[in-house]
Amino acid sequence: MSTDFGSRIRLSVFGESHAPAVGVVLEGVPAGETIDFEELQAFLARRAPGQSALTTARKEADVPEFLSGIVNGVTCGSAITAVIRNSDTRSADYENLKIIPRPGHADYPAYVKYGGHNDIRGGGQFSARLTAPLCIAGGILLQILERRGIYIGAHIAEIAGIKDQTFDASFFDSIAKKPFPVVSDEAGAAMQEAILAAKKEGDSVGGIVECVITGLAPGLGDPLYGSFEGILSQAVFGIPAVKGIEFGAGFEAARLRGSQNNDAYCIDEAGQIRTVTNNHGGILGGLTSGMPVIFRAAFKPTPSIAKPQQSVDLKEMKETELVIQGRHDPCVVPRAVPCVIAAAAVSAAQIVL
Amino acid sequence: MSTDFGSRIRLSVFGESHAPAVGVVLEGVPAGETIDFEELQAFLARRAPGQSALTTARKEADVPEFLSGIVNGVTCGSAITAVIRNSDTRSADYENLKIIPRPGHADYPAYVKYGGHNDIRGGGQFSARLTAPLCIAGGILLQILERRGIYIGAHIAEIAGIKDQTFDASFFDSIAKKPFPVVSDEAGAAMQEAILAAKKEGDSVGGIVECVITGLAPGLGDPLYGSFEGILSQAVFGIPAVKGIEFGAGFEAARLRGSQNNDAYCIDEAGQIRTVTNNHGGILGGLTSGMPVIFRAAFKPTPSIAKPQQSVDLKEMKETELVIQGRHDPCVVPRAVPCVIAAAAVSAAQIVL
Amino acid sequence: MSTDFGSRIRLSVFGESHAPAVGVVLEGVPAGETIDFEELQAFLARRAPGQSALTTARKEADVPEFLSGIVNGVTCGSAITAVIRNSDTRSADYENLKIIPRPGHADYPAYVKYGGHNDIRGGGQFSARLTAPLCIAGGILLQILERRGIYIGAHIAEIAGIKDQTFDASFFDSIAKKPFPVVSDEAGAAMQEAILAAKKEGDSVGGIVECVITGLAPGLGDPLYGSFEGILSQAVFGIPAVKGIEFGAGFEAARLRGSQNNDAYCIDEAGQIRTVTNNHGGILGGLTSGMPVIFRAAFKPTPSIAKPQQSVDLKEMKETELVIQGRHDPCVVPRAVPCVIAAAAVSAAQIVL
Amino acid sequence: MSTDFGSRIRLSVFGESHAPAVGVVLEGVPAGETIDFEELQAFLARRAPGQSALTTARKEADVPEFLSGIVNGVTCGSAITAVIRNSDTRSADYENLKIIPRPGHADYPAYVKYGGHNDIRGGGQFSARLTAPLCIAGGILLQILERRGIYIGAHIAEIAGIKDQTFDASFFDSIAKKPFPVVSDEAGAAMQEAILAAKKEGDSVGGIVECVITGLAPGLGDPLYGSFEGILSQAVFGIPAVKGIEFGAGFEAARLRGSQNNDAYCIDEAGQIRTVTNNHGGILGGLTSGMPVIFRAAFKPTPSIAKPQQSVDLKEMKETELVIQGRHDPCVVPRAVPCVIAAAAVSAAQIVL
Repeated sequence: MSTDFGSRIRLSVFGESHAPAVGVVLEGVPAGETIDFEELQAFLARRAPGQSALTTARKEADVPEFLSGIVNGVTCGSAITAVIRNSDTRSADYENLKIIPRPGHADYPAYVKYGGHNDIRGGGQFSARLTAPLCIAGGILLQILERRGIYIGAHIAEIAGIKDQTFDASFFDSIAKKPFPVVSDEAGAAMQEAILAAKKEGDSVGGIVECVITGLAPGLGDPLYGSFEGILSQAVFGIPAVKGIEFGAGFEAARLRGSQNNDAYCIDEAGQIRTVTNNHGGILGGLTSGMPVIFRAAFKPTPSIAKPQQSVDLKEMKETELVIQGRHDPCVVPRAVPCVIAAAAVSAAQIVL
Repeated sequence: MSTDFGSRIRLSVFGESHAPAVGVVLEGVPAGETIDFEELQAFLARRAPGQSALTTARKEADVPEFLSGIVNGVTCGSAITAVIRNSDTRSADYENLKIIPRPGHADYPAYVKYGGHNDIRGGGQFSARLTAPLCIAGGILLQILERRGIYIGAHIAEIAGIKDQTFDASFFDSIAKKPFPVVSDEAGAAMQEAILAAKKEGDSVGGIVECVITGLAPGLGDPLYGSFEGILSQAVFGIPAVKGIEFGAGFEAARLRGSQNNDAYCIDEAGQIRTVTNNHGGILGGLTSGMPVIFRAAFKPTPSIAKPQQSVDLKEMKETELVIQGRHDPCVVPRAVPCVIAAAAVSAAQIVL
Repeated sequence: MSTDFGSRIRLSVFGESHAPAVGVVLEGVPAGETIDFEELQAFLARRAPGQSALTTARKEADVPEFLSGIVNGVTCGSAITAVIRNSDTRSADYENLKIIPRPGHADYPAYVKYGGHNDIRGGGQFSARLTAPLCIAGGILLQILERRGIYIGAHIAEIAGIKDQTFDASFFDSIAKKPFPVVSDEAGAAMQEAILAAKKEGDSVGGIVECVITGLAPGLGDPLYGSFEGILSQAVFGIPAVKGIEFGAGFEAARLRGSQNNDAYCIDEAGQIRTVTNNHGGILGGLTSGMPVIFRAAFKPTPSIAKPQQSVDLKEMKETELVIQGRHDPCVVPRAVPCVIAAAAVSAAQIVL
Repeated sequence: MSTDFGSRIRLSVFGESHAPAVGVVLEGVPAGETIDFEELQAFLARRAPGQSALTTARKEADVPEFLSGIVNGVTCGSAITAVIRNSDTRSADYENLKIIPRPGHADYPAYVKYGGHNDIRGGGQFSARLTAPLCIAGGILLQILERRGIYIGAHIAEIAGIKDQTFDASFFDSIAKKPFPVVSDEAGAAMQEAILAAKKEGDSVGGIVECVITGLAPGLGDPLYGSFEGILSQAVFGIPAVKGIEFGAGFEAARLRGSQNNDAYCIDEAGQIRTVTNNHGGILGGLTSGMPVIFRAAFKPTPSIAKPQQSVDLKEMKETELVIQGRHDPCVVPRAVPCVIAAAAVSAAQIVL
């Protein structure tokens, strides 16, 4: 099912971009966990639009209302439900998209799948707006995972071909506070320039988000179709615009020799088994190895661009030019960083809680 | 669950490398489908080991016995069960691995997960041997999908950094007959040389498999966590040694502008809507677009290499040198090609049948 | 998972009795279905409390707000979400139950399961209030099923040992309009007397609801663990106070001979295959037979009674007398009738849609 | 899916009555559990046919072969697979049933569902033969549950209206050894007479099996659709011929007052909380209460009877008389006792392991 993620901790995301609300039902969270709403709100703020020239001008307070599952700030064992009201919606912007699908968007397949009944306003159920409930669920689980020694961080690894520096857990705290989450602010400045340059030309750029999970004990997850890679992939491909995922050395591993790629085992000062390098990205045979889990997700450039594009008129079945109205991010990657963290949190929760 | 894949068509894979058998229960296959066992056997032969100097010397006939679900060569609507007996196993080769985990293998996480009770012989439940039942299921579903106009093919896109030529559906038939499945036999020869060079040095190489699915109608699959990318990823990461997956332009899309990456819509000679290019790889918003689905899977170099490696003795908790015995492929990629096709088939079956 | 029902059509129920709201996420409903909100509200009214001396004095308007999935009264293919705000709650009534569990309620097992963090107010997640979202989902699906020729009705078959007359589809319409849903109003009057008599004594009574589903084609459902009996049972036992379920002749079949219980096949005037009798209750081998599906659910007497009862103090671990405050139905059966219909609707949707 | 049961411990049953084999894949069983094969075989023997005049003359050794998941008698964490070969099959007996469905059997709905491709021989996938793999899974889990202090027993509560005495855990051991599992051998003798009397007349009888599970801690299971009643029901309705299930006082509870049906809490000599009576059958709000779980399953009389019956010819679409060939139990209840225990074991495993 599309809204549904997870087995031990189940996430049911609902809503459309211009429906009354988006939200999430989160089941399986242990009872007795205190939720720090301020910390949660700070996490959600990292995803919220309308912060700068880099993102869409649509403004959403993104303050969730909790309908169930939490009593006096503590989980009661019942499903946690949170909704965010949609506001500042300009549905008129989407009138013509009903019959002229936007290139790079789900408009055309959705038109076929739902017989033209899908909610086209703001992208409907395909909108990146649906990452808001993911971030609520992820933000709650982050707090619970941290109490168990598990930490998750991410940075912009690349935008428009400009790369950030090497990232690891030592940057988690500092990056979480940056409005533009990179290790190297110099690289970040170049990325922002590239985004604005594309925006000026009515165009958009893509990029890569890299995420690290620390503190996972070895032996979590399952082999074969229950692999932690499979779980993370399902969550990450649930974020719009993702076109690829790789773990550890990833695609680069395909070009290494076994003797280069294999990570030798050693015993560290604390007497713990670990690997000298981490090309395997913390997962072997689908199971966690005890090393940090590292993955990267590739985001395509925002498909909604101001430049005129070729499309077809579905009613008259003829080719036509499309000019997209509305407000759109020239690059989704900065706001995607907390979404990737949230996807990692809901995935880690499956094998930890 | 680890053995379990799919919801509409469910696959339960079982077995360990040196257990009496490996096999699969395949449920949800429509009744009344004729199974061509000869064609199935030809498909399985593409994965079978012992064919050349490039692969492990272990020989397995890999002839499945069908225990249920098929009456007089026709599916009866009950779960299809097939088993392949394991033979030619040399369990003694694995004695020392119980306490000295192989770098790049699941030995150590499995030791922790199963408290030392996991079957270490031949890699146990983590063995690439478990792709045999995947190929049985995939081979059956391939036949059923083809009757519905859906075809799947794959080639070695890259080994040891050596790239094959561009691949599309026009090569499906010719490549299926090649012992080394590449478009360019010249590139193939160079790849084979690279494999043998690595083997001579007691080392191994990795590579990339590219897969194409044609004939999928637009609008199949689901948004969000039901995306066809998510389904394919779960299946593909169920194949040992996969470290990454990308769709269409994939990671390269992250470096394109929206105006470059977006695929314009047009109407073809047959009056059908299609896209001029296919950077989206046949999937938009998690749904099929009607264009060929294209994805690539990165395989790491075989972790079992003859070269001595550093590991730890889990009993005495000290570092030690490991020399791996046994017969191993210096490159898993050639034999992985049918496995990727099978993973694509079991995935496509979820949204088609 | 507790909130979760169904595979083809998935229902996620959430909320607690005194939480801000209860509600439901309903996924998998086909796009393009018109929802008649007035008809839905009329169905929900059958379950609403506060209607007469027979039910709890708690008043709830029970008007759902739809947050997603419906655009201009038509389903858009996205998950349908509806919430009902909780109001008129008197949480103070439940203070002492935190440590003195009510006999016949989930208080004690919930206390153990959730480590004392469960929401005790109004029964929390165990409250019959959670049948309101079930009825929203059921009410929507009823409309969609009716468009496909499938109708569902139910009556009070028995209360306090007093039996109603024989029930079949010809009574669906008339009973739906009765405030006390029985075929025989005479029997109904006797039942109501029995309820009031029990109430006067600070006691409560139980009863049996019988439900019939017509219009299901033969061959729907699955054998073994996918049986339609199993699906219906999971849904029906999700209604608080149900202690048993039986199909067709049910427990009475255990006392018949095969020659009596077997339903002979015949061909009716319309040339359709049917059975002469319907002891099998419309299900054979887990599959629908084409005959009406008939089942009965046994409801225990309301556990919340005014009479003093023996319980234990969980803090001081000593036996104590409990007097339950609050407003409670002396018999849940009348209001359970639409809940059973809703459970039948969400079950039928699994095998029909 | 039909073959599939459970989430924490997953059971995939496969096979048809006259296919090469029936079997089961059992996943999620903890690693490191020793399996006592002799004890398992003794349990399977309780279900095996051909023991007396009371059961079908078909003889099956019913010795499972284990294909995976167990190394040197100890579970290795991988899926456990076991198969039982079908032998002594007389497929010719079933020739005419392809087009003349047996009353009370799944023949007709299966014919519709599978378009006539279902395996009619021996009842195919609808055969009670499929309870053999259930008993393998149940027998394995019984051993693992017993190590955790959980015990399961069952008796014939009623056959042909003749009732056994009251049953509780004190009879588990003695009844397990009886060929006819009743508390009162006198009642048992009367039941056997009734079975033989029916058999002589070419007829059959039904009955009720009662099952008790002891040792379950309080607070296991989930509310609503995750109730332990729902789990048990899905498993029990997976056994052919079951038409009803009830818990504790069950349908009788519908006739009691709240003050009679409520089970008062007390503190026993060991200082443990328990209830004075057990009308709730060990489950409250879907959760275990710590008291023994008690349920009863109603079995209809065997539908295969020697007496001529009215049916229809599906090809010529006309009514016709059917005389059933083959060997059939005049009463399934005695052999159903271990099946119900197995269903209880696979259900208890879901909430315990």
